[in-house]
Amino acid sequence: MSSEKLKVAFLGPLASFSHQAAAESFAKTSAELLPHVCFADAFAAVQEQQADYAVIPCENSTNGSVVQTLDLLADRSNLYKDVKVCGEYYLTVHHCLLVHKGSYPGGLPSYDGKITKLYTHPQAWGQCDKFLAKYFKGVERQDVSSTSKGAEIVSKETEADERGGAIASRFAAEYHGVDALEENIEDRADNTTRFLILRNILADRTAGLEFEQPVLNGDAKTHSAVMHKTLISFSIDHSSPGALANALLIFKAHGLNLTSINTRPSLKRAWQYIFFVECSRTPCVENDDAVLNALNDLRGVTESCRDLGTWKDQLGVSV
Amino acid sequence: MSSEKLKVAFLGPLASFSHQAAAESFAKTSAELLPHVCFADAFAAVQEQQADYAVIPCENSTNGSVVQTLDLLADRSNLYKDVKVCGEYYLTVHHCLLVHKGSYPGGLPSYDGKITKLYTHPQAWGQCDKFLAKYFKGVERQDVSSTSKGAEIVSKETEADERGGAIASRFAAEYHGVDALEENIEDRADNTTRFLILRNILADRTAGLEFEQPVLNGDAKTHSAVMHKTLISFSIDHSSPGALANALLIFKAHGLNLTSINTRPSLKRAWQYIFFVECSRTPCVENDDAVLNALNDLRGVTESCRDLGTWKDQLGVSV
Repeated sequence: MSSEKLKVAFLGPLASFSHQAAAESFAKTSAELLPHVCFADAFAAVQEQQADYAVIPCENSTNGSVVQTLDLLADRSNLYKDVKVCGEYYLTVHHCLLVHKGSYPGGLPSYDGKITKLYTHPQAWGQCDKFLAKYFKGVERQDVSSTSKGAEIVSKETEADERGGAIASRFAAEYHGVDALEENIEDRADNTTRFLILRNILADRTAGLEFEQPVLNGDAKTHSAVMHKTLISFSIDHSSPGALANALLIFKAHGLNLTSINTRPSLKRAWQYIFFVECSRTPCVENDDAVLNALNDLRGVTESCRDLGTWKDQLGVSV
Repeated sequence: MSSEKLKVAFLGPLASFSHQAAAESFAKTSAELLPHVCFADAFAAVQEQQADYAVIPCENSTNGSVVQTLDLLADRSNLYKDVKVCGEYYLTVHHCLLVHKGSYPGGLPSYDGKITKLYTHPQAWGQCDKFLAKYFKGVERQDVSSTSKGAEIVSKETEADERGGAIASRFAAEYHGVDALEENIEDRADNTTRFLILRNILADRTAGLEFEQPVLNGDAKTHSAVMHKTLISFSIDHSSPGALANALLIFKAHGLNLTSINTRPSLKRAWQYIFFVECSRTPCVENDDAVLNALNDLRGVTESCRDLGTWKDQLGVSV
């Protein structure tokens, strides 16, 4: 199927932030973007090679880790043994106040106070507190299943309906054909979600084609300055004192800088964990085998351990 | 107020698993148990000395850490500066199928298949899959805000109502005066929630009175064999390579065994974290100052660091 378009799985619905992340990270390709209703379906699509890639949220800068993603990466039943991380994408969460097309061509200055109902996902209200308190105090709020759904409702309004507004992305506005009364209405300018890009290591089609992300902010860093990140999961024998410290020491011994640690229950025995360690290095000839050597050493001090992939750091590039 | 009863804050509603944990962990006292509607209220009650203790869920053996508790322990706005952990309590989550009092005096063998509606908290359905598939296949399910609420609904049934069943604890059954058609209907026998017990370090009333938990399973371990656990939070300069590994090394250097690590966003800057490290030691004369010395060393390599308390391990005792 090498002549076919690339297929990229994302977490639906259409016009969600995951859809936006998939569209932006594959902007330079003509990939076909495929919505999936749950995290497990997107992992399965990559394992079964029905999709070439999956774009999955793994962490938000305000809310922390996405445990559903960690649980799928933990892969306790060995369902996704060929799925590895091959890239990441940082999406800054910008919200707009969306209105039916053409209702306020002059934008916020022309707003007459006639919107009687607002729609968005429950998480988004709190992210736009200041704007809502200033312009929409006391206006009825209705929770919907996604920010995209709110934009859809506003797009389908008729003259007979009361006038509504939706909080969603500019991406959702374009998808549903509605106008932005105001953009960037979020309180925190730095609210960002990190997505992991997954591929199947047995798929020739994505092995030859090295995954290339668009260079952000016009930054033209050379390849050699880009850090490489690696994700490794392991479990340890908790009855052995110092076992966790010994495992973490191995990263340091091989010049790998720990950038994050997450834990999830092992579900084998209560109060035993699967650890997810992300580490980084600036690639050079001397540390070409650092990850391989660290994995070899880890196998000696852990109960189980798995290489979940290496990819180019996009954070250093984008900030 | 030293002659008054001890006041213990827990996370409401009444007859919740938190209520049960508070009742069991203070069973030997005549403490007054006070429901609080949210996590932050329970922390504030201890900080303001309106409660002597708070009993707060921090981790479930199946679902992992409770992020609301970690965020309050992170205490980014310095609201709870005198609140520390002084104990822990492990509560095994057992569910019952509860029915209106007297409706099935013979228990499950006398059940006639006439229950047409089941009530429980959304999380509990999945915990009792096998039992429900065997005895209540196809019966309508209604989500309620807590397992205790379901027991309350069943307790108030009249003859005219359709017959309902609730999934909740034996504790909730006793509180609401309903019968258990069957006990221990959960799939996993080891689903356990760990609660932290908090106190205010400035309160004389709880300082003199060392917190004593009931010895579980009749185990009569001597004081000296009981491990002590300590919780420490810290943040590091992420731009400095090896900073996290260096911080974690300090625990090992002082003979403190790492038992868990959790992270939450710092909310100062994206992708910077507050780390929560729990460590243990078997107390002896030689390591009396181990925690103090580790904290001193940590201050040299972290941006901020805080001692969140030391208490007696209850896991070693109970298993």
